Amino acid sequence: MTDASLPTPHHLPCTIGDLPVARIAEIAAFAGQRVQIRGWLHNRRSKGKLHFLQLRDGSGIIQAVLFKGDFDEATFARADHLQQESSIVVAGTVRADERAPSGFELQADGLLVVAEAHADYPISPKEHGVAFLMDHRHLWLRSRRQAAILRVRARIVKSIRDFFDSHDYVLVDTPIFTPNACEGTSTLFETDYHDQKAYLSQSGQLYSEATAMALGRVYTFGPTFRAEKSKTRRHLTEFWMVEPEAAFLDLDGVIDLAEDLVCTIAQDVLRDRGPELDLIDSIRSEAEEHRQLKLRREALAAIRKPFIRLDYADAVDQLHELGSDIPFGDDLGGDDETILTQQYDRPIFVRRYPAQVKAFYMKRDPADPVRSLSVDMLAPEGYGEVIGGGQREDDHDTLRAAIEHHKLPMAAFDWYLDLRKYGTVPHGGFGLGLERTVAWVCGLPHVRETIAFPRLMDRLRP
Amino acid sequence: MTDASLPTPHHLPCTIGDLPVARIAEIAAFAGQRVQIRGWLHNRRSKGKLHFLQLRDGSGIIQAVLFKGDFDEATFARADHLQQESSIVVAGTVRADERAPSGFELQADGLLVVAEAHADYPISPKEHGVAFLMDHRHLWLRSRRQAAILRVRARIVKSIRDFFDSHDYVLVDTPIFTPNACEGTSTLFETDYHDQKAYLSQSGQLYSEATAMALGRVYTFGPTFRAEKSKTRRHLTEFWMVEPEAAFLDLDGVIDLAEDLVCTIAQDVLRDRGPELDLIDSIRSEAEEHRQLKLRREALAAIRKPFIRLDYADAVDQLHELGSDIPFGDDLGGDDETILTQQYDRPIFVRRYPAQVKAFYMKRDPADPVRSLSVDMLAPEGYGEVIGGGQREDDHDTLRAAIEHHKLPMAAFDWYLDLRKYGTVPHGGFGLGLERTVAWVCGLPHVRETIAFPRLMDRLRP
Repeated sequence: MTDASLPTPHHLPCTIGDLPVARIAEIAAFAGQRVQIRGWLHNRRSKGKLHFLQLRDGSGIIQAVLFKGDFDEATFARADHLQQESSIVVAGTVRADERAPSGFELQADGLLVVAEAHADYPISPKEHGVAFLMDHRHLWLRSRRQAAILRVRARIVKSIRDFFDSHDYVLVDTPIFTPNACEGTSTLFETDYHDQKAYLSQSGQLYSEATAMALGRVYTFGPTFRAEKSKTRRHLTEFWMVEPEAAFLDLDGVIDLAEDLVCTIAQDVLRDRGPELDLIDSIRSEAEEHRQLKLRREALAAIRKPFIRLDYADAVDQLHELGSDIPFGDDLGGDDETILTQQYDRPIFVRRYPAQVKAFYMKRDPADPVRSLSVDMLAPEGYGEVIGGGQREDDHDTLRAAIEHHKLPMAAFDWYLDLRKYGTVPHGGFGLGLERTVAWVCGLPHVRETIAFPRLMDRLRP
Repeated sequence: MTDASLPTPHHLPCTIGDLPVARIAEIAAFAGQRVQIRGWLHNRRSKGKLHFLQLRDGSGIIQAVLFKGDFDEATFARADHLQQESSIVVAGTVRADERAPSGFELQADGLLVVAEAHADYPISPKEHGVAFLMDHRHLWLRSRRQAAILRVRARIVKSIRDFFDSHDYVLVDTPIFTPNACEGTSTLFETDYHDQKAYLSQSGQLYSEATAMALGRVYTFGPTFRAEKSKTRRHLTEFWMVEPEAAFLDLDGVIDLAEDLVCTIAQDVLRDRGPELDLIDSIRSEAEEHRQLKLRREALAAIRKPFIRLDYADAVDQLHELGSDIPFGDDLGGDDETILTQQYDRPIFVRRYPAQVKAFYMKRDPADPVRSLSVDMLAPEGYGEVIGGGQREDDHDTLRAAIEHHKLPMAAFDWYLDLRKYGTVPHGGFGLGLERTVAWVCGLPHVRETIAFPRLMDRLRP
């Protein structure tokens, strides 16, 4: 297809001679050398015979200093009129500079404009409304704070995966398409699957119980979907969840595993993403300032074993003392979690919830069948539930009766009941919500900034 | 809720005193020690005063030898009648044994039955049909070959993630819910999204182009969905894809990146999953034997740089010589890929396909606008396409004209066109299909065994 309606294709210019290309994150390795850096103009200012260009390449930001005497007149003049977000290549010598955030600046001697940005770049330094920024999310991600959040998120994902891989948990991706609306359709997204109905998974747990019986220790880590009509700072319709599951793991084992994982995440982020945390701290909106959160390095440093362990009954007692009117036997609400977790600087495990507020597959406590062998982990500083889990019902007849009791479609659970027919063992696991974890680690007021393109009840684009 | 209809809950017995629990994968560390191993009875045989129990714990299989003199009569007798897949705990001393696959066996002195399996365990050593096995996928995964495939898959995932993390590509999870049917609805799964239509993502690429402009180098790695009515050995409706995307990456850079990634995968699997590969090789069906594949260690050892690089035009010439009647200008079909890749023991990059067979966003070759700056990587031994990618159109007006030319809804691409308005740069990337890669690495005849619970046109359960 050569189509006359299409302009003639061409290559964009993007190199200055054969100078080595340096990435800003690795600039220290090029100290004293002449290099070229490719990226975008983040900001600029001028002072007499000097132009200062803030150049970002995605890995970091560096200041390029252009002295008039080093450039021809046209190039130097153009540098003073470049639009924000224009793509440029700057050549120059890497110089140590103590005042620079990266410790280096570029003494420029060459400038190539790859493509000038249109003059109407919508995001300016002034404070924009969230709806406006979310409409321009594809550009908003170029801001330093949003980019830093995404880097912290990626580090948390790596931390989680490395933790399970190194503890011999086998990653087993569980299916998104599921044939049955196991717990009612009201919170499920439905699709036509080659003339059957299919639902998007809310959790891989039931499948992970099967793979744990095959591989001993497993985890699944993927997107999950909830069609809940919730507009809160804690809910997305599409969110990522990691769910470990292990044979011969009891409630105490589940709690220890969760504790180790969360400590590892805190330590990894603190060690490897300190500058990003500082940056996030340094650019807060007024509304965020009101929450009076700790600086994030300080908050993460406090995440040490042992976490607080409370039985549900004790948690309710504490809540009553704190002024909550939660009826004994009810699940904790978001407000209860906020009040309770504001009392501590480390996470709280709330154990042994009433069986009636937990799912049908949760094992009941043999010592007190009203309670379940369940646990939620609530993050401090008002963040609330980040983890939910527990021990699973391992007895075939008890599980069958629970399915009947909950009026669930028995045929859908044939395979799940098989796990109790052929070599059942005590087993358990949990689910950790990635976006809530990122929000807490970064000290964000809302989960919507924890993922590149958040999906909320009223937001499906860009 | 204490409900009289539910049986009284109880704990399953699962420990023999306070003996240390050993996992079979780490058994060498316990040589000479007395331990307990928890797992399932994989197989058993008896000979006089000896019972031999094959015990699997998910991390491996070990033989426990029970001598009559070491047990009370009832326990010894019971060991000879245990059903396959019963959950058991065996105590004993770890002894080196050169004949054992793990190098060790357990000289047993204690046996605890956690739960006897029902006598009708459906999967026996005889060869079952695939439909039957897929119906019992939750149990089939306990077989050694299926478990080995899942372990290889998990290693490949880790290899891919480590590769990109260590090359400073930032993981950015792109959304599954997308608002527009950008390339027609026929292959898309649709869902009602709070009274709007949403579609399940077929690729994160367009979003990754946006995040590459923010972070320089990014990758997305998640499930993708195709509603195609294809029943072939290469198609799932739900499959995982990793998609790197980078600013300032041209077609040659894309090819080099893909080559490095695939070499890394082959080396990592070869180094860390050799025993699993051998096991997969050793248990083949007759149909599989017919394909006369190499032993997998040998196949992976051959995956070395440089791979074959062919322009599309040369690939078509070769195909004609090999007897194909593919018309020049058509996309390669599955059969063509099979014929072509059977000629080589390493992957083939086919470059510069006709623009008309590639997507609207593919950059056309400035030197010859009929061709696109595209590349597919075809895996050897008949496996065919595993990677597709190339350089993206970076010019605003050219891209806009292409969208019009393809009669796509312009409004849906507003944000995508913004990437060309504000600092466009040359950029590119590719998508690697995880399941096809696993099938090739393991030498499997069909992608359905590469994922725990495959979703095919006619299979949505268990």
